[in-house]
Amino acid sequence: MIVGFIGFGTVSSSLSKILIENGCEIISSSNGRSLKTKELIKKLKVNDLNNFNEVAKNCDILISANTPSKAVDIGKNYGSLTNNIFLDLNNISPTSTNEIGSMVGENFVDGAIVGNVNNNKSVIYLSGEKADKIAILKDYGLSIKIISNRIGDASKLKVLRSIYTKGVSALLIETFEIAKQLNLEDELLNILVITEGDNFRNSSKSRIENSVNQLRKYGEVEEIVDFLKQFENVNIEFIDSMKNSFKRKF
Amino acid sequence: MIVGFIGFGTVSSSLSKILIENGCEIISSSNGRSLKTKELIKKLKVNDLNNFNEVAKNCDILISANTPSKAVDIGKNYGSLTNNIFLDLNNISPTSTNEIGSMVGENFVDGAIVGNVNNNKSVIYLSGEKADKIAILKDYGLSIKIISNRIGDASKLKVLRSIYTKGVSALLIETFEIAKQLNLEDELLNILVITEGDNFRNSSKSRIENSVNQLRKYGEVEEIVDFLKQFENVNIEFIDSMKNSFKRKF
Repeated sequence: MIVGFIGFGTVSSSLSKILIENGCEIISSSNGRSLKTKELIKKLKVNDLNNFNEVAKNCDILISANTPSKAVDIGKNYGSLTNNIFLDLNNISPTSTNEIGSMVGENFVDGAIVGNVNNNKSVIYLSGEKADKIAILKDYGLSIKIISNRIGDASKLKVLRSIYTKGVSALLIETFEIAKQLNLEDELLNILVITEGDNFRNSSKSRIENSVNQLRKYGEVEEIVDFLKQFENVNIEFIDSMKNSFKRKF
Repeated sequence: MIVGFIGFGTVSSSLSKILIENGCEIISSSNGRSLKTKELIKKLKVNDLNNFNEVAKNCDILISANTPSKAVDIGKNYGSLTNNIFLDLNNISPTSTNEIGSMVGENFVDGAIVGNVNNNKSVIYLSGEKADKIAILKDYGLSIKIISNRIGDASKLKVLRSIYTKGVSALLIETFEIAKQLNLEDELLNILVITEGDNFRNSSKSRIENSVNQLRKYGEVEEIVDFLKQFENVNIEFIDSMKNSFKRKF
């Protein structure tokens, strides 16, 4: 089994590590990449080809894991080059996913990573007609779950999850900000643990720390709201206004 | 120990049941009350006095547990009549709590019930100089926690908790509404359980069921927002707009 990666950042390297440990061959290209990427490719013993064209043509599964802004171009340039499966794992909107799907065609599989990819506790959700062809990576150590055969379902599910988790973070930022001003922070934490469970004590703190002053999350909410405009009967104002909680320091 | 109740609805009767089982004497008055209340008072063997004036004068602790709209009047009429402690347990705003406090004076204790009072899993949070005089009710089976000696802290804490739990309910209503339209309801539930814990499977459902089409919660959010206007650095638009999630059917 040969897996090719277009781009070799955190997601690609974390997945590669697991795949290599389980006997999978990984190919990528360090051509024109940063020194950090070159070193990472060397360190993990990834097969370093001349360019991404070669990577696309010489693998059983081609995976795109990059910065979201490059995802559509990568799909366009390399998605159709491979004769096998092209999996997009970028954190992109369902609209962008469908755009890639229309360019790549039947070999395209839509993927979304949920959970922390660094500690191998993440699950890769897949949708698309050929999602089952990627499910073989379970044998190489990855956690994989097929949602449906409809392109876009994986990214839609990620958006839904993101609305909930971002909203909870925003609520925590606001309530603990008010609690701080009232000198009732510890009391609020203790009272919420009663109904939310012991795990809330740590999860609430890390959610606040990971969300304050996060302009990236502000932008993600704007993208989500753009996607939500097609739906009726949704409290968009509520979802939209959470973005302001990510813009200021706590 | 004699505890008097002004009003005898769900909260009063649930607490009375526990207190009586643990050897406390309960007094109230069915004068002018509904048939249902009269029967409840009889059934629980509550000492039925001629009127609330007598109740106020003949107890060690006087508890007001009514509909929120009557709380201030009850504080005014009976809070000063008792020579002992007056505890307000109504679901009222910190502003109303302080209003009662200024009328009743030093014998006033501010209380908030958190959790389900019906199954004896609730905790009574108290604040005020004389909160420790109510803590004796622990010996009679109640769960009691003193927050501080500042009148208003108990109701403020309840408001803070309410912002969080109502906000989570609103988020669940919205995300599962969108998921329904995308035919991804089960998938969303499964994906959230990974990070939110197994308990989320049931808690999310009951939160949605208890929040859709709840005009009462809509009004409570309006009252909360009114209270929040005194704070700086708070995303009020976000908290305010959650109210619209409680106004429509799911």
